[in-house]
Amino acid sequence: MLESYREVGGINHLDGVNLPSKSAIAQITLDLLRLLFPGFFGERPVSSTELRSITTDLICSIDRRLEVEVFKSLEYAPPPDAAGRDLQTLARHVTRDFLAQMPRTRELLQTDAEAAYQGDPAALSEDEVIVAYPCIEAISVQRLAHELYLRNVALLPRIMTEWAHGRTGIDLHPGARIGTHFFIDHGTGTVVGETCVIGNHVKMYQGVGLVARSLAGGQQLRGKRRHPTIEDHVTIYAGATIVGGETVIGEGSTIGANVFLLESVPPRSLVVYDGLTVRVLSKNDRGSMPEDYEI
Amino acid sequence: MLESYREVGGINHLDGVNLPSKSAIAQITLDLLRLLFPGFFGERPVSSTELRSITTDLICSIDRRLEVEVFKSLEYAPPPDAAGRDLQTLARHVTRDFLAQMPRTRELLQTDAEAAYQGDPAALSEDEVIVAYPCIEAISVQRLAHELYLRNVALLPRIMTEWAHGRTGIDLHPGARIGTHFFIDHGTGTVVGETCVIGNHVKMYQGVGLVARSLAGGQQLRGKRRHPTIEDHVTIYAGATIVGGETVIGEGSTIGANVFLLESVPPRSLVVYDGLTVRVLSKNDRGSMPEDYEI
Amino acid sequence: MLESYREVGGINHLDGVNLPSKSAIAQITLDLLRLLFPGFFGERPVSSTELRSITTDLICSIDRRLEVEVFKSLEYAPPPDAAGRDLQTLARHVTRDFLAQMPRTRELLQTDAEAAYQGDPAALSEDEVIVAYPCIEAISVQRLAHELYLRNVALLPRIMTEWAHGRTGIDLHPGARIGTHFFIDHGTGTVVGETCVIGNHVKMYQGVGLVARSLAGGQQLRGKRRHPTIEDHVTIYAGATIVGGETVIGEGSTIGANVFLLESVPPRSLVVYDGLTVRVLSKNDRGSMPEDYEI
Repeated sequence: MLESYREVGGINHLDGVNLPSKSAIAQITLDLLRLLFPGFFGERPVSSTELRSITTDLICSIDRRLEVEVFKSLEYAPPPDAAGRDLQTLARHVTRDFLAQMPRTRELLQTDAEAAYQGDPAALSEDEVIVAYPCIEAISVQRLAHELYLRNVALLPRIMTEWAHGRTGIDLHPGARIGTHFFIDHGTGTVVGETCVIGNHVKMYQGVGLVARSLAGGQQLRGKRRHPTIEDHVTIYAGATIVGGETVIGEGSTIGANVFLLESVPPRSLVVYDGLTVRVLSKNDRGSMPEDYEI
Repeated sequence: MLESYREVGGINHLDGVNLPSKSAIAQITLDLLRLLFPGFFGERPVSSTELRSITTDLICSIDRRLEVEVFKSLEYAPPPDAAGRDLQTLARHVTRDFLAQMPRTRELLQTDAEAAYQGDPAALSEDEVIVAYPCIEAISVQRLAHELYLRNVALLPRIMTEWAHGRTGIDLHPGARIGTHFFIDHGTGTVVGETCVIGNHVKMYQGVGLVARSLAGGQQLRGKRRHPTIEDHVTIYAGATIVGGETVIGEGSTIGANVFLLESVPPRSLVVYDGLTVRVLSKNDRGSMPEDYEI
Repeated sequence: MLESYREVGGINHLDGVNLPSKSAIAQITLDLLRLLFPGFFGERPVSSTELRSITTDLICSIDRRLEVEVFKSLEYAPPPDAAGRDLQTLARHVTRDFLAQMPRTRELLQTDAEAAYQGDPAALSEDEVIVAYPCIEAISVQRLAHELYLRNVALLPRIMTEWAHGRTGIDLHPGARIGTHFFIDHGTGTVVGETCVIGNHVKMYQGVGLVARSLAGGQQLRGKRRHPTIEDHVTIYAGATIVGGETVIGEGSTIGANVFLLESVPPRSLVVYDGLTVRVLSKNDRGSMPEDYEI
């Protein structure tokens, strides 16, 4: 085994700078959710009299631990504008700056909870949405990770969103720019790529992909715009895939289930398959029955 | 942050009635699985001599903890028929009543394990199905949650099924009425909506959606029938989506993969796409090759 | 409840041989990942001076615990060639043999990490791939489970891959034979069946199914070849389903998103739907708008 570590070196991580810790980040992310939604994600109820002390303790604890992971990320991949700066100081600055914007993230998340409640007749209340809907967890974590992504922190934001991906089946890249009132119903298998831009009041279902054209490029495409733009008030049904960095879905459009779309559509479009009609055969009519096709 | 809690109030939960606790419910649900399948979900083997004492202890422990969460749910959303009744007494009644029906749930689950074993040549034994197949966990939790749903307990059943959704990728709403011998193979991304009615011997694959037509209605559709009826002995292949509250899939039918179906079909139907033929192009034939389409 | 255990016996596991423990196997699998990728999956950094002692301790600990679970699996389903052999000795032999091949598994996994990094412009480095991409975890666990599957260990390998399935949404059966440089992007809902054979440099996306034709056979098909062969350098886009044991996808082919394919295609094929064109309707043009179809 030791010989293998010497010879097959690419998948070791030894003696290098420390990588951010997956387990520490999981715990920090859970605590950030508690901070965003007081009384929902904790173990016990929160009264407003104790809110101040609970919040203060929680922020101090997150601040300290998050700074450690931010530092490791900056040390691993120093941002272009960090040349000559002390990374420890930069980590502190980024962490404080990140925590300072949390109230803005809460305002966005309130619009998401509202959209989920309004959009789903199965929802009893916004409380049920927050406590039970996986999209709230996935979107919250993406919005937090996006703030770190904007501050040029590598690795850490992606570890956060992959933690949420594992828990919810919803894969939202930290790079995506997402507007207000975002709702993903069910959500398992839905993918939103790094350079997506999503407007306000967008509703998506499970298995939707906002993905990149995978030309031969591979790593040469890094940093380029590769994923679609979805304008305001668009609805995308289950299993639809929208591809490419120049594709724009005009505001108010509806994309049907399982549609595979490589091109832009104007505002207020309804996109379905042409000439795709369901065929209902009778199993009793032996003649027309493709016997083999019971899959 | 405290200011944010004051101003962006919709996603706090402060000073209200206690919400059911996600972590307590996760632990209770795991213990209910141990109670349903003795010897499978526990840490150590169970001998029949100790079965009585283990079972007694487990039921007492679940009873006590479940009653607390049922009470919180009833307090949060008192059922229509609870007017004037003591909710603590009602919580005790519901919890006892729920536990008393567990043997019936076990009978149903035995049919599910049998269906999974019979339906999948990769399965070595019913033991393997119970210990390894995610559908057994998802269906067990849905059947339990459904019993609480029928007793007008809010929130708690949905938190249970979302716990299973997170672990299995299978999203079964507690409201769905599901018959015997239900098998979901693989299951990731499969969604069964609140007002579905599913017959006996139904087999589904991953990515299947039994979903609602989302007319402008939103919350106005609450409580209305919105999801399809699937009759006995129906098979639904991967990625198929069946929509709407008046859609009935007749007994013995087969729905092909990726089919998107908005209408009822008679018994013994085979539903596939008409005119949908696979086109095989050669990459060597430069003329006909859509160069751009390597996606 | 005790009466139910007596009468509904098929889903108890009492007084039989011990089944492998899901929780013990989860912990062993995590430790195997730490052994494969030193410095990535652990809680703290690993320096090369302490690598020897950490590795020795880890291997000894895994060896002891894994042998217990291998023994339970062998006792539950003794392999055909074990007649008359001491199962405890066989368990020790299998466990040692399994651990001895770990360096070979590492060589394969290095090719997978390389393929993921090369294939995804969103990836910053191979480190990011290993620490954050769910496919690395799913493929690692499949490659380990496959080695146990080849040694005729029942149950245990499937419990390992289902543990990974639950965490990643990627369902790779331990029986599948998978070549080098295997990459699954996003991956939620992707299924690879028991008798698949996958070549080198194969790239797949989320929601891909390599599945079996489900003829009436059920358990009668056990052990038969039921799943497709994918040759080298094939790319399969999101939601495509490939069916059947005689289906061969020729090397260098590309299978489009959502394609449902029941037949072999020659090398360097591009497979898309014929006559399937997206139809873009305007919601402003009331005449042609199927009002009802807002789903």
